[in-house]
Amino acid sequence: MHTLLLGSDDVDENAQMPDVIGAVEDAFAAYEHGNAQMPAKSYIDLPQYNGDFRSMPAYLNAESWDAAGIKWVNVHPDNPDDHDLPTVMGTMIYSDPETAFPLAIMDGTELTMKRTGAAAAVATDYLAVEDATSLGIVGAGVQSYTQLDAIAEVRPIEEVVVSDVRDEAVERFIDRYDDEFDVRGGSISEAGHCDVLSTVTPVEDPLVSADDLGEHTHINAMGADAEGKHEIADEVLLAAKLVIDDYKQCTHSGEINVPWHEGVLDDDDIDGEIGQIVAGERPGRTDDDGVTVFDSTGLAIQDVATAHVVFEHADENDNGTPFDLLGLGN
Amino acid sequence: MHTLLLGSDDVDENAQMPDVIGAVEDAFAAYEHGNAQMPAKSYIDLPQYNGDFRSMPAYLNAESWDAAGIKWVNVHPDNPDDHDLPTVMGTMIYSDPETAFPLAIMDGTELTMKRTGAAAAVATDYLAVEDATSLGIVGAGVQSYTQLDAIAEVRPIEEVVVSDVRDEAVERFIDRYDDEFDVRGGSISEAGHCDVLSTVTPVEDPLVSADDLGEHTHINAMGADAEGKHEIADEVLLAAKLVIDDYKQCTHSGEINVPWHEGVLDDDDIDGEIGQIVAGERPGRTDDDGVTVFDSTGLAIQDVATAHVVFEHADENDNGTPFDLLGLGN
Repeated sequence: MHTLLLGSDDVDENAQMPDVIGAVEDAFAAYEHGNAQMPAKSYIDLPQYNGDFRSMPAYLNAESWDAAGIKWVNVHPDNPDDHDLPTVMGTMIYSDPETAFPLAIMDGTELTMKRTGAAAAVATDYLAVEDATSLGIVGAGVQSYTQLDAIAEVRPIEEVVVSDVRDEAVERFIDRYDDEFDVRGGSISEAGHCDVLSTVTPVEDPLVSADDLGEHTHINAMGADAEGKHEIADEVLLAAKLVIDDYKQCTHSGEINVPWHEGVLDDDDIDGEIGQIVAGERPGRTDDDGVTVFDSTGLAIQDVATAHVVFEHADENDNGTPFDLLGLGN
Repeated sequence: MHTLLLGSDDVDENAQMPDVIGAVEDAFAAYEHGNAQMPAKSYIDLPQYNGDFRSMPAYLNAESWDAAGIKWVNVHPDNPDDHDLPTVMGTMIYSDPETAFPLAIMDGTELTMKRTGAAAAVATDYLAVEDATSLGIVGAGVQSYTQLDAIAEVRPIEEVVVSDVRDEAVERFIDRYDDEFDVRGGSISEAGHCDVLSTVTPVEDPLVSADDLGEHTHINAMGADAEGKHEIADEVLLAAKLVIDDYKQCTHSGEINVPWHEGVLDDDDIDGEIGQIVAGERPGRTDDDGVTVFDSTGLAIQDVATAHVVFEHADENDNGTPFDLLGLGN
């Protein structure tokens, strides 16, 4: 019994985006139907290193498959400057639910990018206008790439506007995609007037105001993942059809956490969870909807679902490096 | 940046028992001093597979070193019969607290045996009579071996009595140790009349009664790790000097959980935590003490402390298999 080791390139290669989007969609539905277990994230705070660790265990049963695992991930903002390491690194243990054997250990950093893009794609599929062809991205960091990769799978994206104060990050993004898309740098307002807008920044002062948006822009608010973070102006959140991924996580650390704690926004302003829409219990975009917002904090079930896709594909294609971690022989 | 992979043989080879005992002792003291973080174990229960997963993250600062990590471990009792796999398997991610880089991924099954033996040794060192030369073990399963390995490091053990209804398990244990010790099979009462007794069974009906014990026997009650488990008769627990590893875990799932929930045993019957004794805040064995009991549930800080020893030793000796999991190059 060998455990399959999958480094970042292996995860990239085996996380076929259409399959990842499908698995994440299944995961949202399973969660809504009560067919998932996702204990609260637990945190280890290390102020002496200006960092923290988070453990994200989950199990989900998507009827034709089930999957279990845990992602161990950190946020250490001083890493790039002080240690030449990424701020966020993750390691995923993917286990067989029936026996608990660790089927695979994989890079959780690449995995996080894939599943985050996939979540935005699922929300875009249900909430953006049908004929969306333009995508704006605010924040050209590591998470921006899979926003485009994934959203282009659910809408025929042709035009991309990327906005970031760091010119070199914008250039890097354009270089990566200018063979495939009509991609250019632009202002937040230009990005926000696209059919779909993804915000992937760590800011605490909202960047996107109502004036920056088209009448029917769908926003994927991906950046907020901690108390105090906040990308979109309250007036937008209050006026929009507002969909969240998980009530507990979003009110704690999602896009809505600041106005929710300040009492500016309350539960009545939340239209529902993405799982309810995926499960058909609430409508996606209707003709009456203007701006829509998806508040994504990132759920452990997304990681497990994506790890399932990666492992199955790698296993079928003899990718990865088998290792006898548990000493069980064979 | 490579992550060091350490399989079960690597863990065995690099977990030098005296060092592991020292690190676990340091961990108990750090926890007592508030220099550790140990979020509650979180469980994923899978009744459809008669199993569960547990995640055990921890950080500890032992002053001359600190360490962080998580163990992902399961209990699937049908595994041996249905899948030819162990009931319990574990995987440990060991991380640098300063940057969160995953320094090592190691077999958590072997690690668990080592740290469990080490905990018994720490308790034995503080609670057994000084001149203890005999050790009884009830339950000759996978956890019994490190009980002897570890306890022999803190007391000059010569005579060992092992008791188990499974004759072949007793034989296997004797074969392993008869070169080093005067080791024989025997009754529970013969084991319990040794200077030190370790119980490592999963029973729910107590096996060890007051008549089975010597006047000054120190008992390491290692087996109980879930609600309903109970190895030692209530009369023994009530009369003994009773030391626990952690109040929350012991009342939830340790040796005392059944009588504590039934109200037979209350907080006044608990003498203290092992960390208080290690830290010098409460006495270990005194001349007035008769039977002593250590209720060990197994703490995440023990795993992290042991992983620290394993990684440091492996790293120094170029053991293990380096793997570029995160794709950071070099």
